[in-house]
Amino acid sequence: MKTLSVIKIGGNVVDNPQALDAFLDDFTALPGSKILVHGGGVMASQTLLRLGIEPKMVEGRRITDEQTLKVAVSVYAGWLNKTIVAKLQARGCNAIGLSGADGSVIDSDIRPKEPIDYGFVGDIRAVDVKFLDMLMEQGLTPVLCAVTHDRKGTLLNTNADTIASRVARAMAAVRQVSLTFCFEKNGVLSDPEDGDSVIPSIDRETFRQMKATGAVSAGMIPKLDNAFSAIDAGVKRVIIKNSANLGRAIGTVIE
Amino acid sequence: MKTLSVIKIGGNVVDNPQALDAFLDDFTALPGSKILVHGGGVMASQTLLRLGIEPKMVEGRRITDEQTLKVAVSVYAGWLNKTIVAKLQARGCNAIGLSGADGSVIDSDIRPKEPIDYGFVGDIRAVDVKFLDMLMEQGLTPVLCAVTHDRKGTLLNTNADTIASRVARAMAAVRQVSLTFCFEKNGVLSDPEDGDSVIPSIDRETFRQMKATGAVSAGMIPKLDNAFSAIDAGVKRVIIKNSANLGRAIGTVIE
Repeated sequence: MKTLSVIKIGGNVVDNPQALDAFLDDFTALPGSKILVHGGGVMASQTLLRLGIEPKMVEGRRITDEQTLKVAVSVYAGWLNKTIVAKLQARGCNAIGLSGADGSVIDSDIRPKEPIDYGFVGDIRAVDVKFLDMLMEQGLTPVLCAVTHDRKGTLLNTNADTIASRVARAMAAVRQVSLTFCFEKNGVLSDPEDGDSVIPSIDRETFRQMKATGAVSAGMIPKLDNAFSAIDAGVKRVIIKNSANLGRAIGTVIE
Repeated sequence: MKTLSVIKIGGNVVDNPQALDAFLDDFTALPGSKILVHGGGVMASQTLLRLGIEPKMVEGRRITDEQTLKVAVSVYAGWLNKTIVAKLQARGCNAIGLSGADGSVIDSDIRPKEPIDYGFVGDIRAVDVKFLDMLMEQGLTPVLCAVTHDRKGTLLNTNADTIASRVARAMAAVRQVSLTFCFEKNGVLSDPEDGDSVIPSIDRETFRQMKATGAVSAGMIPKLDNAFSAIDAGVKRVIIKNSANLGRAIGTVIE
């Protein structure tokens, strides 16, 4: 079975030109087929502010109204996605930027309006494995942004972590998939105060012990739960690491 | 040889939801392979205004500085392109939105800075015929926006009429291509005051006579010159018509 690396980067990388350039050098150097999933960063929020559109929040979560959707799609699928694609092309990586609407690669249902109406937010329904596989067979590297569609003509803001996770799970049917979440820390830390205390590998038994003894921070538990769900769904390996370390064996491997 | 329809729509269609929906119905119903090229409309200018960015003009032409490029790429490749793609998907047309950077389908040189520095504006160098043909062989319908790249990591604002024309010429090597420019009139008019006085067909001899007798308006001459250049380059037929008439045989055929 062919391999596939699905790599997710967040706003801390896309907002920082030096960090992004260094990351894209490492990404280009990765051997084999790969898919990049990127978050939005703060550019959408800044643009909303500059346009005088007040962010709408309910219980700490952003509501995507029509104006927010326009800005999010413009920034995510437009400026950020195309900037990343152009930078990859300059490095010799034949990238193709996609929203979920392109080739209908990811379609979603709009999130139910009860108990909270989040607006134009999508919960993923399906990933088109055959389409992504075809692009990679043609030597292309898909670059996915955090936008999907409902197949009825509406674009939907969609969580980039969830996109990465769902794409990795779906592709596990046809490829041996590793899924890498890049974030601002070096991995799962044994000592939250010590950025170098990276736990190199966690299996299910270790995770159970860590939860029992409180040796894992509250913020890491959902990330690790998600990682083990991906493993259960057929993903070979989940890696949590710093985007600056993509090319280096520093990080936590969950398998 | 397989056929291909390249259709270009401008801002008057993309800015008007009713006109756009009606156009996309007709576009979806077109038989055979097709490529849609869309202009930007006024949304980019409006966004620049709302962001407090003064349009920079030299001799009536817009200068694309860095901020203008960000907004243009966001609006053209983001909101407009993905809105069109999602609407086509809803109609059962398997569209894929592309900037010139995606799959490096169109690469450009930045326009020379002398005599006027237009900023981030591209003059097209090459169209990847094989890539577009591969997508269409896979049942996909490319939707191209007015953004290209220089292969060195820089995105470039690029005239949509020129993109349509260059794509049609390049594809003429492998397909029997018709190129349709949609605009606000019903075609080339024999009486500029009478919108229904459409000249159904113009050949080179007719055009020469029309120019000699002043029977063609000054604004139409460059459009017709371009149309005949496309014919010279192997395009089978150029059609100038109203976007509202895409599904009807009203318009001017140049061949």
